[in-house]
Amino acid sequence: MAHITHGKLITFEGIDGCGKSTHLALAQKFLAEKRLSVRTLREPGSTDVAERIRAILLDRKAKMSATTELLLYEASRADTVEKQIAPLLRQGHIILCDRFYDSTTAYQGYGRKLEIKMVKSLHTVATGGIRPDLTIVFDIDVATGMSRLGKKLDRMESESQAFFKRVRAGFLDIARKEKRRVKVVDASRPIEVVFDDVKKILLQKLELA
Amino acid sequence: MAHITHGKLITFEGIDGCGKSTHLALAQKFLAEKRLSVRTLREPGSTDVAERIRAILLDRKAKMSATTELLLYEASRADTVEKQIAPLLRQGHIILCDRFYDSTTAYQGYGRKLEIKMVKSLHTVATGGIRPDLTIVFDIDVATGMSRLGKKLDRMESESQAFFKRVRAGFLDIARKEKRRVKVVDASRPIEVVFDDVKKILLQKLELA
Repeated sequence: MAHITHGKLITFEGIDGCGKSTHLALAQKFLAEKRLSVRTLREPGSTDVAERIRAILLDRKAKMSATTELLLYEASRADTVEKQIAPLLRQGHIILCDRFYDSTTAYQGYGRKLEIKMVKSLHTVATGGIRPDLTIVFDIDVATGMSRLGKKLDRMESESQAFFKRVRAGFLDIARKEKRRVKVVDASRPIEVVFDDVKKILLQKLELA
Repeated sequence: MAHITHGKLITFEGIDGCGKSTHLALAQKFLAEKRLSVRTLREPGSTDVAERIRAILLDRKAKMSATTELLLYEASRADTVEKQIAPLLRQGHIILCDRFYDSTTAYQGYGRKLEIKMVKSLHTVATGGIRPDLTIVFDIDVATGMSRLGKKLDRMESESQAFFKRVRAGFLDIARKEKRRVKVVDASRPIEVVFDDVKKILLQKLELA
């Protein structure tokens, strides 16, 4: 897999209900208006095989071990990287991705308590070494995040508050350890205020500020 | 995961068309007649989630990278180990499993040319360290194996002769490296003759000879 890339991979992260998908859509519009070539993807998904894996992962009736869950997320990721992310980066696009490997570290590592080192070694297998150029974590307290979810929760959204508290702490820990790549925004504020922060972060990373 | 087990895990391996499934059924009957408690499983599969993963893996329309394929096999394995193999071993049963991690080493490692060390590290993630007590490789030349397959080939069975030659060589290499665990039988001979060998190997391993 080629490691020389010209595009940018920007990932949107946070617990369910944090608003990342809303901000990803706003960011796409914002960057497209600047005539930048933007593509949006989501994880797990964005390829036929990855969407089939997603259907298993989010099915409330599917009971699986934490290790199976981890390996399915990584299988989905490998397909999305190979078919979408790697070629789009080579072609020079800016990719906005709704979740990426930090979600797996936070949910399956911190949330499910799988060994973080092992989880990260699987990221390398799945991505072939591709890393986000920028990651924005939308931080929100668990109760607020959960109150924003719809009534029909998927398998992951149905987890306990204690689980999501570990996941949130996981995202913050990742950000503390990788300050240059990972930026945290306080997502408890009104959308427009949060998006002002997002814009500033994007412009700085893309050297348009 | 508990590593203290009292049952036995016996895996049946080889390229498609080698006859392993036929011999597994004969072995089940043979051991059951000796009033041993035998359970049969297949990989990928034997749990709801694993069978759903199997459906993706064997679907001829599913195009996926070698890494995605590898991770899906390991995800399926993790589920089968957690829900079936580990509890059955703890309960003292003899498990006969149609394929296990040696198939992944042979097909995805030797066949797809993924790094063997990385492939083996995923076996450890998926199995939590459980290893077969005995593995029987049914060795047959590729042309004979392929001639035994039905007309409707699945995604893996549709691979090239060159691929299956690498897989066969992989199984033989694994056997050379783990002589105590892995026994090779010449599966080109008539079923009864081959099964005489299988019986001897089983009786010796189960200390019934």
